Amino acid sequence: MKTICYEPIGVVHSPFKEIAGMPIQPAAARGIEGTVEVDVKYKAALQDLDGFSHIILIYHLHLSTGFDLTVIPFLDDTRRGLFATRAPRRPNPIGISVVRLIEIEEAALYISDVDIVDGTPLLDIKPYVPDFDAAQNIRIGWLESKLRRLSDMESNGRFVNG
Amino acid sequence: MKTICYEPIGVVHSPFKEIAGMPIQPAAARGIEGTVEVDVKYKAALQDLDGFSHIILIYHLHLSTGFDLTVIPFLDDTRRGLFATRAPRRPNPIGISVVRLIEIEEAALYISDVDIVDGTPLLDIKPYVPDFDAAQNIRIGWLESKLRRLSDMESNGRFVNG
Repeated sequence: MKTICYEPIGVVHSPFKEIAGMPIQPAAARGIEGTVEVDVKYKAALQDLDGFSHIILIYHLHLSTGFDLTVIPFLDDTRRGLFATRAPRRPNPIGISVVRLIEIEEAALYISDVDIVDGTPLLDIKPYVPDFDAAQNIRIGWLESKLRRLSDMESNGRFVNG
Repeated sequence: MKTICYEPIGVVHSPFKEIAGMPIQPAAARGIEGTVEVDVKYKAALQDLDGFSHIILIYHLHLSTGFDLTVIPFLDDTRRGLFATRAPRRPNPIGISVVRLIEIEEAALYISDVDIVDGTPLLDIKPYVPDFDAAQNIRIGWLESKLRRLSDMESNGRFVNG
């Protein structure tokens, strides 16, 4: 199959200058603010986005190198298949985050609930639409019992490595 | 900023051989079945995925060429900023779909609620986790009044062009 190449459409700015200390997901990053600096040539494509409370950012996990087929996730002590985890070291290190959109000024998006490292290249922006993006009757496998730990860590204000 | 290149990890198979007649989102594709053929070299990375009822597929919209900064979405009659829509013709034509995982056999994933054209190159698979992927207190801008139309079309069993 053919190699697929993309040009970043912008860059994400956040308080996280390195992976250590990052929240592991937007849910754990509630209230943390950042900025998306969209290339000005795409400014017209941002029209109408301000009507949406949440947006999906798709980005390149530029600090991730290599991957293992199985990993011990941060929330777990058992080795799991990589695609059953959200670990950033993946064959194609693509990240997705649902973040809250606060305001748009020119080609800058002010966002909250940011779990993205500063300087991350942005690939796409989509409006978050529950009818499209939220599923019902969910099972979450090995994460079922672990998310309680995540919620405890959040309430203690502690962040864990991504 | 640097060009980012990815190698597909597999291919999506579906009943949709062309874009015409495609459902526009998984919500409109309920019950439509497909298969994800993951490259066998990643088989071990699929371990534990079967515990999840839903997965997020990230793929390259390989039939999309070019883009316009504003578009008239299929649900609308007003021109909107491209990034405020889910139109497939984007600067980086990356698609994301939340689909239902039915079964895994070797490196093949049997899935349902498929809104993806046959032969689509797959870039990543992530487990769908509501704590990470579902947001609360949502506003959906221009789509607010339009989704009723989508729901009508679904209940009539009609699909619209993507």
